[in-house]
This record gives sequence, structure tokens and C-alpha cells, in this order.
Amino acid sequence: MAGDTFGRLFTVTTFGESYGVALGCVVDGCPPGMALSETDIQRDLDRRRPGRSRHVTQRAEPDQVKILSGVFEGVTTGTAIGLLVENVDQRSHDYSKIKDMFRPGHADYTYQQKYGLRDYRGGGRASARETVMRVAAGAIARKYLAERLGVAIRGYVAQIGPIRLEPKHIERVDENPFFCPDPDRLAELEQYLDELRAAGNSSGARITVVASGLPPGLGEPVFDKLEAEIARALMSINAVKGVEFGDGFKCVEQHGSEHRDEMTPGGFAKNSAGGTLGGISTGQDILVSIALKPTSSIQVRGSTVDTRGTAAEIVTTGRHDPCVGLRATPIAEAMLALTLMDHYLRHRAQNADVRSQTPVLEAKHKV
Amino acid sequence: MAGDTFGRLFTVTTFGESYGVALGCVVDGCPPGMALSETDIQRDLDRRRPGRSRHVTQRAEPDQVKILSGVFEGVTTGTAIGLLVENVDQRSHDYSKIKDMFRPGHADYTYQQKYGLRDYRGGGRASARETVMRVAAGAIARKYLAERLGVAIRGYVAQIGPIRLEPKHIERVDENPFFCPDPDRLAELEQYLDELRAAGNSSGARITVVASGLPPGLGEPVFDKLEAEIARALMSINAVKGVEFGDGFKCVEQHGSEHRDEMTPGGFAKNSAGGTLGGISTGQDILVSIALKPTSSIQVRGSTVDTRGTAAEIVTTGRHDPCVGLRATPIAEAMLALTLMDHYLRHRAQNADVRSQTPVLEAKHKV
Amino acid sequence: MAGDTFGRLFTVTTFGESYGVALGCVVDGCPPGMALSETDIQRDLDRRRPGRSRHVTQRAEPDQVKILSGVFEGVTTGTAIGLLVENVDQRSHDYSKIKDMFRPGHADYTYQQKYGLRDYRGGGRASARETVMRVAAGAIARKYLAERLGVAIRGYVAQIGPIRLEPKHIERVDENPFFCPDPDRLAELEQYLDELRAAGNSSGARITVVASGLPPGLGEPVFDKLEAEIARALMSINAVKGVEFGDGFKCVEQHGSEHRDEMTPGGFAKNSAGGTLGGISTGQDILVSIALKPTSSIQVRGSTVDTRGTAAEIVTTGRHDPCVGLRATPIAEAMLALTLMDHYLRHRAQNADVRSQTPVLEAKHKV
Amino acid sequence: MAGDTFGRLFTVTTFGESYGVALGCVVDGCPPGMALSETDIQRDLDRRRPGRSRHVTQRAEPDQVKILSGVFEGVTTGTAIGLLVENVDQRSHDYSKIKDMFRPGHADYTYQQKYGLRDYRGGGRASARETVMRVAAGAIARKYLAERLGVAIRGYVAQIGPIRLEPKHIERVDENPFFCPDPDRLAELEQYLDELRAAGNSSGARITVVASGLPPGLGEPVFDKLEAEIARALMSINAVKGVEFGDGFKCVEQHGSEHRDEMTPGGFAKNSAGGTLGGISTGQDILVSIALKPTSSIQVRGSTVDTRGTAAEIVTTGRHDPCVGLRATPIAEAMLALTLMDHYLRHRAQNADVRSQTPVLEAKHKV
Repeated sequence: MAGDTFGRLFTVTTFGESYGVALGCVVDGCPPGMALSETDIQRDLDRRRPGRSRHVTQRAEPDQVKILSGVFEGVTTGTAIGLLVENVDQRSHDYSKIKDMFRPGHADYTYQQKYGLRDYRGGGRASARETVMRVAAGAIARKYLAERLGVAIRGYVAQIGPIRLEPKHIERVDENPFFCPDPDRLAELEQYLDELRAAGNSSGARITVVASGLPPGLGEPVFDKLEAEIARALMSINAVKGVEFGDGFKCVEQHGSEHRDEMTPGGFAKNSAGGTLGGISTGQDILVSIALKPTSSIQVRGSTVDTRGTAAEIVTTGRHDPCVGLRATPIAEAMLALTLMDHYLRHRAQNADVRSQTPVLEAKHKV
Repeated sequence: MAGDTFGRLFTVTTFGESYGVALGCVVDGCPPGMALSETDIQRDLDRRRPGRSRHVTQRAEPDQVKILSGVFEGVTTGTAIGLLVENVDQRSHDYSKIKDMFRPGHADYTYQQKYGLRDYRGGGRASARETVMRVAAGAIARKYLAERLGVAIRGYVAQIGPIRLEPKHIERVDENPFFCPDPDRLAELEQYLDELRAAGNSSGARITVVASGLPPGLGEPVFDKLEAEIARALMSINAVKGVEFGDGFKCVEQHGSEHRDEMTPGGFAKNSAGGTLGGISTGQDILVSIALKPTSSIQVRGSTVDTRGTAAEIVTTGRHDPCVGLRATPIAEAMLALTLMDHYLRHRAQNADVRSQTPVLEAKHKV
Repeated sequence: MAGDTFGRLFTVTTFGESYGVALGCVVDGCPPGMALSETDIQRDLDRRRPGRSRHVTQRAEPDQVKILSGVFEGVTTGTAIGLLVENVDQRSHDYSKIKDMFRPGHADYTYQQKYGLRDYRGGGRASARETVMRVAAGAIARKYLAERLGVAIRGYVAQIGPIRLEPKHIERVDENPFFCPDPDRLAELEQYLDELRAAGNSSGARITVVASGLPPGLGEPVFDKLEAEIARALMSINAVKGVEFGDGFKCVEQHGSEHRDEMTPGGFAKNSAGGTLGGISTGQDILVSIALKPTSSIQVRGSTVDTRGTAAEIVTTGRHDPCVGLRATPIAEAMLALTLMDHYLRHRAQNADVRSQTPVLEAKHKV
Repeated sequence: MAGDTFGRLFTVTTFGESYGVALGCVVDGCPPGMALSETDIQRDLDRRRPGRSRHVTQRAEPDQVKILSGVFEGVTTGTAIGLLVENVDQRSHDYSKIKDMFRPGHADYTYQQKYGLRDYRGGGRASARETVMRVAAGAIARKYLAERLGVAIRGYVAQIGPIRLEPKHIERVDENPFFCPDPDRLAELEQYLDELRAAGNSSGARITVVASGLPPGLGEPVFDKLEAEIARALMSINAVKGVEFGDGFKCVEQHGSEHRDEMTPGGFAKNSAGGTLGGISTGQDILVSIALKPTSSIQVRGSTVDTRGTAAEIVTTGRHDPCVGLRATPIAEAMLALTLMDHYLRHRAQNADVRSQTPVLEAKHKV
């Protein structure tokens, strides 16, 4: 398996290149009887779609999803759900400059070494366009989790370059194209991005994702710890270079008395753990942040080699996102949703009969 | 599968509780014909073993490994390798204090909610003792990678509490019980740990692991990106709360021109990426760091609830590691070795015939 | 995973209902650099297609396959291959008779009990139409096996009802619509089928599939024995009720001295084993037969119950294959190809370095 | 994964050679809270054990199982269950005759070609002794299925050589060493086996296994059909060459009107299907038969080659089972139990919420 399938029980298998005919996926293992329409999926696709602001790539892709199977008379049947999004913007591009050249920071060189060849059109399979199907499949998981368990999954941009953003209004992230949770800082953000673009450069970002309402008990004790599986899911998104839960890397300098979340009958005293203990959800918010590297496609000239290993210079032309993090929020939400859904089914498989004598502690400390 | 199997092709399935009869594992998929003895495995187990200094738990466990199958006349046969370590220190402990109580920061509460019951003896399956078998299995992977590919995997403590350590002498980490790469700082470290222990408190840590000599091409393009799989492997170690590659979270504030590793015929200009691009190894060093939370077992009194949800107070007695990170280095090395081994076999399965026209760039920037 | 993925390394994930929008699949893990076009796949699809003779269902489906991804400039890239076949014949059928009724021998009742609902249009996911994508994916595996290893996979109808057919001319099975290997018996077959159809009844069949040219060493020693994996692959085809290798059930009455295939420097003396020993290919022909039950859709009135459990009578109207085995040959070939391909990659992953001192024995006893 | 793991959710990973130190396994995914002791497992191991009659190998192996983990205070904890059986009979054998020689019908040649070497002591990993752990793990699955679902799994010898046995007294199979369901035929069986042994020859066998009390709905619709998964499980037992469900190969000559199981409010009219339709259990008895080839270790001289490919003659000395089928019944039962258990958990994962409007039909036609 070349790694295009995600999940054990609720599985997503994707295909599609940036400038291929279409992107698609198979969502397998969805419980039957859930109402599902293309509109349910389109909503999340539209949040991810390019062209929502002048700060992201202007490629004209409507990203209209079609459900090809697995839904009958408006509800899921329990059999494989096929989804398809056709690539519309297939203008003939001129790839002569990158065909025989490796762009630094891109997957060009590694694909060539792994496969001996590569689809050089817009990154091929390594394009951020690959994430379309993550978002589409994630929408199905998210709907199930919301309707059956009351789980809400939300994300926001926590930092872009030097600008740190507090989750003051996480409910308003969809009102702006940056998924910024602090509307007062929008002008500042816009200015920073305009300057970046003018300089032909790019910036990194930090995204935070939160899942609220999750029951305790999800996750497995050893290798498939919930945080391990979420980390894998998020690290598999293009450009992600780090992931941390709760207090994350800050815990390196903490004392045990400071880090541990004390417990009271009214709930956990705080949420430094980020929602798991020993690989299993506590019922608190899952709280996870990722670092995204700055876009590698920039207009600053750089050194590279060509496919024969000869020295060369490169400069990226055309419009590109100056911050790949700008559109990453719905993708990160989708990957979190897929992981939680899979683990909900895994947990239910083994432990559907379990009745714990211990009352569930309230999750008080929400973002 | 309750998550006790790691890997797709080179798989490790472990079992065992902290105070159970024994710990064991099955290593499946090892290529045949590799010389392997108990000594090869014991070396790494001894590096992980408790009691190496006064700063770690003094539990008397020799951790002597036995090979039960899969090796014949001194070489691997290609069939399943069974490994066993008997638990020796089974003195009758008094668990009455924690039997009906949840220790904050431990997996007590989450196990109880997941399974309806738990093995409360020393953490049961959630004990750090579970990692013995990761190290044992990792030793086999590491041996193969070293002998067939020339891959070297080394780790070190990069930070303990406020003390940051540079990898000045990574070749000397085994000469001290902290896996400290800077011998000049040992006295400082010792003093810090003594103070911590006197206060009955604990500290977090950062561990860095490096794999050198890896060929380019390992890893899969979408969900099973090499960095995603390594992140999962490391996040599955007890107490890990964050993971980052190369420049990691620093990339949030970097520009694209600063982050990207330019390429020349002589090699990559630097290694901000940490050894992968697009999920696939570049041939540079794999460079990954993890954050470990401070030990939760401390002598500072704290609030908790009992198994019926009633408020209670808890204080941990007995000797515990004041810094769980002190013994984490060989465990992190083992998990990295297992992941790379698995991906080497996965890559070979699909791409054994590939002959890239592009010369392999030298990995210049080594730790 | 609801079971729509086949294989470990060369994986096929399918979707699609009989009267849904389309059928599709994702083929993941295909080695890069193999020439592949839609024509390569279409050839096998055309062999399976309905309407090839008056003896099979006359549904008008061109079954034109489209490659949506994973092929670039005429060769496989090593990334996921998306395939699509649109359903064309979507005339509005009248399902009122079977909507609330369970057809004996069909999956209606079991789907209803499993999922609480079902797509009743032409069997939905349980339709034989599901096998279109097995054949499409199998064509890719078959091409790789033929080109790189020289493996030839061929099947034939060995028995229909009482008519037993010897593989006199296995090279001519494609010249008739029954995959009959003995052209002299065609008239007899036609007559038998005409009589069946006139009686509104159906017949079972036996299909034999043969893979020649396979190297020794494929298959795993314990649970994933090659014969076990092939058995699973073939038993997963609709209507298959039995599978046997080599002498198969005849071995119940054989003596050891009779069954065992003696070995000489010139090769195995015969092939009673059917090409494997201890779960691993011997290099002889893989020789496997399956039993297919008679089509359940017949015009003979029968007893059943409706969805509320009330007694009812049923008679199938419309045209149906009087022998589901008539079109099963390419499907069985495809499943064998997929299994062998997967095991070739699995074998190579672990044992690419193995150089056996023992010469490979010739496979003399070919069908 | 070299194929030593069985199952998706209830997984069994085994290790151990015929004359290695020990045999063991890890059973992962068992639901928590089930009472389990070594006695529960030993019962089935004793049924499989060699030396129960003069007709089977007289190797002195007590096969005493030890539970190493996963059980606490007498009940399963939900974490990995480690099981161990030490090999006791390790008398030094003389392997000089088979060390450099391939025994026809054994896995000697195929292991050598796959791995380049082999453990030649008593078959190594390819020994029937490998099945000890299947039976041990199967005992756990069987206990869960019996206690929670009321499923009963029983097997019997249906044929040995020419002697066909009807299931007249399936409840009495444990009273004789052959698992013969017709006590009146015991003398005849004994005589046949005595004659075989006197001739130094061996015989094939047919075993039938039945699972009663299974709910409808288990199994997956496409590749993981219940019958496909059972077929794989049974075909993975040493020496099995065929498997069939219900009427099995007889359906080749049946008409549709004859084969289909009509349905009435009182239940299915008969059970030709063998308990599944469309890959999913009907609630009828699962009815499956396997063909086992005659033991290959016989005292009839035969032709073979040595490890350099040179012609040689071979005759097996020592005591061997004249019919490998004699001890296969508990193994086949175990593999059926493991498959059903795994699919029960898989079904529950996806469909725990499903409430079918259709009443469950009674399973009337029991063996």
C-alpha cells in the first residue's frame, strides 16, 4: 500500500494529481443510515477552496463534489462511498522551466529519487490540491461525530509569521479568509501578507485545532495512542513540520506539579494535557497545534540542481499562496475528524459493552 | 487490533504489564540471513534499563532478553522472532492507596473509562516498562539498517527543564546516564536533578534523535509520509507531548527564502527540513525532536477523584524518575529505527527496480 | 474498513452499485515506470462485459474505463491510479416488486439485517456488476506480472451443470463466449443453456484458473499462505461456494505415496499440490478451481418473506444469466493476478537480497 | 508483515518452531471483563495434543499454556494477552538425513527458495506444531462467542480415506481420539488406520466445522465476505487443499431451483448456502468442510533432490500421524472461532446502532 489509505475502520483512499483529470476518494466503513448529500460535503470544500481572497492562489477551481456511490435515498448505506471532484482549470501551462529542475523545498527531488520519474505539472500528487479529498472525506466524519456524539471540531490560525492570534472569537473564523479568531487583528494580518507578497516571499504559520464533546475512552494504549494517531494525521498534511498537544513543547520547562491536570468531582482543573492521558481521550477538549513551513514557491532566486545533478538557479513565477497556512485550517480539522471517527469505531468494536462505574468528569476548560 | 502492533511489513507486536509475569514481543518480517544473538539486543536494553544512576527508578530489573524463535544457527530465518523478558522484581507492593484512586497525569482514569477496569499495579500496561520491548525490537531494526545500509541512529537529551544542551559530543552520550551530549554540563545537570528530587518534583525534557546515512526515497507520498509515520512512532512513547522535524516550530516565523534548503551539486546547503520533502527522505539526516512532559508521579500533594468520582487527595510515595526524559533516548532511537526499517521494506517492495537518472546529493549537514 | 480494499501492498479499493452513477477503484502501490493505457485495461473488461452472447444478461453497458490519475506520459508514476466506469444503462426500472421482498439466494435479507436498509436497485453493491473493477484492477497486475516475470494467467470453464470440459485448447477460450477450452463441445453447451433458459432455471459451474511462470518463494508461512490468500480472493467473488488446489478434494481419498509430488533434477514429477507447499509457491503452475452456485434469479416460483417477515411468493422476471459461471472466468483470473502481484511485492520487500544455493526446479506439468 | 498475524480487530500474532524454545502468541483486541484462566485455554489444547492415541505422533509434549499478560484478577483487561507454551521434548534428534535434502510434499524446498535457508529441525516453522497457538487463541474467541452470543462451534471428521462418516452424534466427537461423530464406525476406522500404518503410508481426510447460533449480519460485502475470510482461515492450516460451504462443489451440478434456500416466516427451508448470502451471515449454521491431504512423511521410498539440486532418494523414519486430519478438528474449530470473533467486532464497530425492521429468521436446519 503506497500510503493513500487513511484509517483502520473508517478508511479514506484518495487519488488524483494537481493537473490530472480528477481527484477522488473512497470512504469505506461509514455507518449506515446517516443523511448525507453533496451539500454536506460542499460546505467544507468551499471553506478550503482557492481564490477566497487575493492572498491565496487564484486558480479557478469550483471543486464541485459528486457522490458516486454509497448513498441511497439520501442516507448512507454502509457500503463504500465514492467521491469525485473534476479538475476544471487545465489551461496548458508551460512546465519547461521546472520539468528538468528541482524546486528547493518541494518534493521534486524526492519523487524523482523514489520513483525514477515524476508528474511535474504543478506538483502532481505532491500538490496541496491533494488535500481536497481529505476535506471531502472529513466532512462525512465530522457530520457523524456531530450528530451522534455532539462532537464539535474547530480550528483557527494561531500565528502567521510574527503575528500571534488568540482564540477570542473562534466562532467567527469563517467570516474572514484567514480563519483568524481575532477580527480586530485582520488589518494587521492583511498588511503583513501584502508586504510578503510584494517581496515575493512567504511565511510560516501555526494552526490550532480543537475537538470538544468527545467522550473519554477513545484511543489505544500502546502504539495507536490517540495523540500518536492525530499527530500522524496532521503531520501527513503538506508543509507541516511540527505538532504538539496541550502545553506541548512548553512542558519541557514545566515541573510535574505545574503540568499535571488535577481532578475534582467538577472536572479537570485545567487542560495542559490537551485531552489525552496514556493515549486515551479524557473527555476534555482535544487541543493540538501544528507548525506549517513557509510556502516554498517564492520569487526569491535560489540555487538548485537539475535532473542530471548540474547546478542551476530557480525562481518561481505565477501566483502562489504566500502562506500555505492560510488554507490549512479546514484540512487540519478534516484530519482530526477522520482520526476521531476511526477511533470511535475502533473503541466501539472492542468496548461497546463496557459500563464504567466511574462518572465522566466534565470538560470545563474549553477554548 | 487494540494497537499493540507497530509497522506494516517489519511489524512488532508487544505485550506485558509492569508487574505481570513477563514482557514480550513478536518481530515479524525481518529479512533472513542476518546474524542475531541475544547480546545484540541486550546492548540496547542495558542502555534503557532502570537503576543506571541514582536519578532514575531503582527497581531491580535485569531485563535479560531471550530469543524464543526466528533465529537458527545464529541467523534470522525470516520467520517470526519471539522475544521475552521476565519481570523479576515482583515484591508484593501495597496498592491499596491507588487501587481506588486516579493519579493526575496518569492513565488511571482513562483506562477505567475505556475498559471499565484496570491493572492498577504500577500502571499495568500504561507503565513506562512497556517500552522495554520497543527497545528490544528496535535493536533488530537498527542492526539491519546499520549493516545493510550504513544507517546510524543516535539520540541525545537536548534540554532538561531550563538546561539546554548542544550536541557537542554526540558520540559520548553513552558515557553518562543522562544521554547528555555535552560532558561539561554534567555537574549542572546532576545538581538540577538533585534539587528536583529533594523537592519531590519533576521536570520535562527534550530529546533529539538523528538518523544518518539513509538513502533518499523512503516514505510514501500522502498519508504515510515518512515524517508522519515517525511522528506517530515517537508520539506513541509515554509522556511525549510534541514532535518537530528540522527547524520545527521555528518555521512559523521563518520566511520561505530562509527555510528552504537550497541544493547544489555538492549537496543540500543546510537541513532546515529535517531530512524529508513531500513525505519522502532526501538523504539528509533525519532530525527530529520530542517534548516529554514531567513525570506525573511526584511527592507534591494534589487533588483528584476516586473511582466513584468523589474528591480525594493524592501524593505519590516511593522512588520515581524525576525526569522521564532521562531514559527516553534509547526508546526514541528504537522507534525511529523501527519506522525507518518498515519504510525501507515498503520502499523496496514497490521500487526495487527503480534506477533514478539523478545522482544522489551528498548529505553534508550532519549533527 | 468495510472490506472494499484488497491486498496489502498492491491494493485495490472499489466502490459502486449496480444502478448507481459509476463504478470506480483506486489501485495503490503499483510500481512506477510501467506503460499503461486504457486499452490495456479495456481488453479484460471487454472479456467480462455482459451481452457477449444470448446466454448472458443483455444489459447494455459499454464499460468504458477512464484512467483518472497515476499515469503520466503513458507510464505509471507509482502514485494512486484512479479508474472509473460510468453506468450507462440507467433506464428506470420498476423495483416495486423486490423493494419490500427478499429474493432467496440473494443478499437482500442479509444486507437488510446488517445495515437496516439496502439499495434494492439490481442488487446494489451485491450485484455481479461490482466485479467490473476487480477485472480492471486485475488487468494492471496481470500486465506487470507478464512483463516483469513472464507469468501467464489463464482460466476456463471446467464444468457447467453435468457437462465436464477438459482443457484441450486453453489457448482458444477467448474464441467463444463461454470460456470453453474444448471447441468440440460448444454445440452441446449451447443446447444445455438454451434448455435451461427455456425452463427459466439456472445451473452451477466450475471454473479453473492457472498461473504459469511464477517463481518459487511467493507466499507467507503461517496465516498468509499463498493458497489461503488465493482462496480468500476467489471466495470473495459472488456465488463462489468452494475452492480447491491441485487434486483438491480428491486428496481425501488419496494415499501419501499417491499425492506427494516427487522431485527430480528435471523438475517435479507431477502437480498434485497445485503449485504451493507450506503456503509458498513451488514454481509449478498454480492450479485452482472454484465452484459457482447456480444463479438465484430464476423464473421458477419460490417461497420467501417480505421485509416485515410475512410469507410471500417470488418469481424473477427479466433476463438474467442462466449460469453465473459463464462470465466468471475473467473475474477469477483477475483475482488470482491481484493476489500474486501483492505477494510478489511482499516477497520482494522481505527477501530481495536472498540468493538461494538451490537451483530452481523446472515446472514441467503445465495445463 | 510476514503473515504471522491473523485478524483485523481481534488479532492473533504467533511465533515458534517445532523444536525451538517455545511457541507463543499475542491476542490483541479482546474485549475486557471476560473471565479467563489457563484452564479455559488448556481444555482445547488438550484436545489437539499429540499422543492421544496410538494413531498420532507420540511426541511427548504436555503443551501447558501460561498466560503472561492481559488478564488481571481473573478477567481480561482489554490489553494484549500473551500466551506461552514451552517445548519440552527437545531430545537431540539426528537431522543429518534431511538437513541437505528436500522431503516431497513438505515445505523444505519452498522455504529454501524463499529464505535461502531453513530451520530443518522437524519442519521448523512449517511444522503442524505451529497450530498449537491457533488453538490457544481460538479458545479465547470461542469463549467470548459462547458467553456473549450463544455461538457453539463444533467440528468432526467427515471422511478418512474411503470411510465417510455422518454427523450422527456430533456431541460425542470428544469421546474418541478421531473426532468421529459416529461411534459405530470406530472399529472400522481403527482398522483402516492400523493397515495404513503397517503399510507405512498415509491418508487424506475431510473435516466439517459448524457454527450455530450466529446472528445475521456478520461479514463484509465485497472482498472480506465472511465465507472468503473463513476460507482463508481454514486454507491457512497445514495440509488443507480445499474448502467448501454448504453444498459446496455439489452446486456445480445443481439447478437454481434446487440450490436456493427458500424462506418462510418460520425460517429458511434448508441450508444449501452454508450460512451466508452475499458474504454476510444469514443466521443459519455456518457449515464448512475442508480437504486435508495425506501426511507427506511416509515410509514409502520416493525420489527427491538435495539442496544442490542433485537427485536423491528419501524415506521418512520415526513415528508420524498416518492421517494429519486426525488432529485437525480442534484447529479448524479454532480458526472458525477466530474469524467469527473478528467479524463480530468489525460488524459491531460499524453497525452497533442498526435496528433492522425485519425479524430474524430462525435457523432450523442444524447439524
